[in-house]
Amino acid sequence: MTVEDRDLTLLDDAAHAAELPRESDSLDEENTLKKDFVRRVQDALAEDDQETVYALVEPLHPADIADLFELIEVEERPVLAKAINDLMGSEVFAELNDHVRELLVESLPAEAIADIAEQLDTDDAVAMLEDLDERDQQAVLAEMEPEDRAAIESALSYPEESAGRLMSRDFVAVPEHMTVGDLIDFLRDSHELANEFWEVFIVDARHHPVGTCALSWILRTPRAIRLTDVMQRDQTLIPVSMDQEEVALRFQKYALISAAVVDESGRLVGQITVDDVVHIIQEEAGEDVLLLSGAGDGDVNEPIRDSYVSRVRWLVANLLTALLGATIISSFSGAIEKLVALAALSPMVASIGGNAGTQTMAVAVRALATNQLTRANTRRILWRELRVAMLNGGTVATLIGLATALVFASPLLGAVIGAAVLTNIVTAGLAGVLVPVTLDRMGQDPAVASSVFVTMITDSMGFFAFLGLAVASGLVG
Amino acid sequence: MTVEDRDLTLLDDAAHAAELPRESDSLDEENTLKKDFVRRVQDALAEDDQETVYALVEPLHPADIADLFELIEVEERPVLAKAINDLMGSEVFAELNDHVRELLVESLPAEAIADIAEQLDTDDAVAMLEDLDERDQQAVLAEMEPEDRAAIESALSYPEESAGRLMSRDFVAVPEHMTVGDLIDFLRDSHELANEFWEVFIVDARHHPVGTCALSWILRTPRAIRLTDVMQRDQTLIPVSMDQEEVALRFQKYALISAAVVDESGRLVGQITVDDVVHIIQEEAGEDVLLLSGAGDGDVNEPIRDSYVSRVRWLVANLLTALLGATIISSFSGAIEKLVALAALSPMVASIGGNAGTQTMAVAVRALATNQLTRANTRRILWRELRVAMLNGGTVATLIGLATALVFASPLLGAVIGAAVLTNIVTAGLAGVLVPVTLDRMGQDPAVASSVFVTMITDSMGFFAFLGLAVASGLVG
Repeated sequence: MTVEDRDLTLLDDAAHAAELPRESDSLDEENTLKKDFVRRVQDALAEDDQETVYALVEPLHPADIADLFELIEVEERPVLAKAINDLMGSEVFAELNDHVRELLVESLPAEAIADIAEQLDTDDAVAMLEDLDERDQQAVLAEMEPEDRAAIESALSYPEESAGRLMSRDFVAVPEHMTVGDLIDFLRDSHELANEFWEVFIVDARHHPVGTCALSWILRTPRAIRLTDVMQRDQTLIPVSMDQEEVALRFQKYALISAAVVDESGRLVGQITVDDVVHIIQEEAGEDVLLLSGAGDGDVNEPIRDSYVSRVRWLVANLLTALLGATIISSFSGAIEKLVALAALSPMVASIGGNAGTQTMAVAVRALATNQLTRANTRRILWRELRVAMLNGGTVATLIGLATALVFASPLLGAVIGAAVLTNIVTAGLAGVLVPVTLDRMGQDPAVASSVFVTMITDSMGFFAFLGLAVASGLVG
Repeated sequence: MTVEDRDLTLLDDAAHAAELPRESDSLDEENTLKKDFVRRVQDALAEDDQETVYALVEPLHPADIADLFELIEVEERPVLAKAINDLMGSEVFAELNDHVRELLVESLPAEAIADIAEQLDTDDAVAMLEDLDERDQQAVLAEMEPEDRAAIESALSYPEESAGRLMSRDFVAVPEHMTVGDLIDFLRDSHELANEFWEVFIVDARHHPVGTCALSWILRTPRAIRLTDVMQRDQTLIPVSMDQEEVALRFQKYALISAAVVDESGRLVGQITVDDVVHIIQEEAGEDVLLLSGAGDGDVNEPIRDSYVSRVRWLVANLLTALLGATIISSFSGAIEKLVALAALSPMVASIGGNAGTQTMAVAVRALATNQLTRANTRRILWRELRVAMLNGGTVATLIGLATALVFASPLLGAVIGAAVLTNIVTAGLAGVLVPVTLDRMGQDPAVASSVFVTMITDSMGFFAFLGLAVASGLVG
């Protein structure tokens, strides 16, 4: 809603596009740093031309400076950090990719790290320090102001990826009897307030939150009104031990901007704001595709050795699964010798089953992660996926059966492969739901282990059904 | 920061846990509706006991009521809607799963839909109406108040999934000369304000945004200060045509809570708040795993026929890919007849290559989606993935080579399969990056088409390398 004021003349000026985001010298149309720009920075770094580096980097937003670090070579990063000096503020550190930050932090002395940590919000400072080894961590903490040190040690006492680590200890909490006017006066007089806050928490004598008051409400309420009369009593309280993924789901479900964090006794100890959660939502939602394939972190800044270790583990696990399939085929060697076409066709049956299984698995894993698949509707969803699998299986089995019968001039072979494909796709549909659900019920992350089991099932079933039916049907004399 | 007041006695009472979220009658420890609870609602619906249904549903948060609709059978939903009547407010509609809402809306008369739409924010109303067919849409719009109708028609004029559809037309924009005191008075006197806002936009005479002012700053600034002196001039402006995924990336990158939306001439036309974006982030980040496997929507509430159509298309595409592999194997029939072990071993080579390719593909697709992989660092990342692939390939090739040599008492066979696996895994590593990147450069969504091509490459290379080397090495007489 706009304020129409006699001083305000609203003239449309189609030519005036001064504020529109446009390609700049450094950012391209996708809002990422241009290749030329990065190259110019790298050239200046190579020539040790600190002035040019500084001039190029100075106009950038901290988030873009953080991106720049990711785009240059590993060896160039400490050089860049030195060249831009005072631009390397806490804001840039907060935005840095985890791996990049880890390397940079390792190259700095403890006092320098302590300085940066003191300027950061507790959750960002914790993110910076939590991956340091014990000795380095202690060294840094020793250099910090007692208050900040205590806050960080307190945060580190909570489990990793919990609300306690995510939360900020800066928030505004006021007693119940205050009026709007009291609050505004208090805020105006205080000099040490939270950087950003979107609502005010109202607490009782025991420091338990009794309600929240959005700033937009406070601003439009007359000064004399008591906060308890305008506050919202219905609030979402986050226990300090709650897993960050759960926190993210709550924020999404209830469209929260911020939420109070309470300890075991119900005392208000911190606040989580949605911008911290947004980062987690993207991470957690995006990681399923990486976990399902065993790609690990999926972060291209991860040291190569770490990527190798996590991925090769997965490949070896799948090797064992593939071995099972090879063993099954081996046991039908006699049949294959008599009808070599079987060797060419059996991988198709296994592969199609694998594809169908992966589809169902992807759906089930996402549905579990977003709480769409719960105990209350598991049976219904299983039945649904079974029906989809039968439709898919019927269609694909018919296509492949007809094609095979034609190409090999053998209706029996066509029927055998069709039946095998149908069996495998239906099996894949069932496995694609049951395996993730079972892992979830056992408290395991379904995205991590499901695909090994599902692939094992579809490969085995594929080879066994096809070759078994080929023999049983008398196709192979 | 807490206000210590003489009235405030802070006594820790460990026994007092009244505000902690705990299992309730209806929600379980994962904050989803309990199976029993859903069953009780369904029983009451079956007995047409509207009073019990109402009593059970009444204490629920609108988001939980929306979940309840997802957990009951399709036929039961209109019955539930009728039974809970006035609880079916606009809030519940805004939270409903898209497919569920579509079915419900189709069963309601145009006036009823118009009523609900009028109460919703424009973006939620648009979401409700945009999937109706033309005729029904017009019928509903005809029943609406002119103002609301105009807002929705305006929103519908923007492309699907664009900022124009996401934005809310309710925002607070004030002229440059205002002081903090003027603003507070204005907010107090106005009765028709945006429901929720977190910052105030300051506009010039041409209604172009010149800065923003967070409410937390306004509250702590003395009344006499001009807004232009406290406002933040550095702002992120969202063009009305920007794709929603891009909007989400901006919000994340710059940790925004809200952002101004401007039209082509730079005029402020709307506001997007982070809670709308959160929903999109989760969708967009989570869809890669579904797209890569061709699982389509991945929404378990999608009509079965739609799931079937999108998934079977994918299976058939993969069938053709598998056909290519079968053709390659066929061409080596002679070799297989002489050494049947080849039939058992070749699927392993293809499969391991497929796994490695999927890993790399998952990493590349996510990196492209999050702007971690850009033109500025493509070559570096390709080289990185190549090195990881060589490490993985070397390890797996050695393992499988040794095992095969032992089991078959044939060092040559071991060497052949080892070489083939190494070749395939390295090929997979290259393909896993190059295919998504190429599709991305061509303006296609890498997540949608990559896996068909990558699988085609790894299957073909797997069979060809192994069987080809087996023949070339003289293994097969």
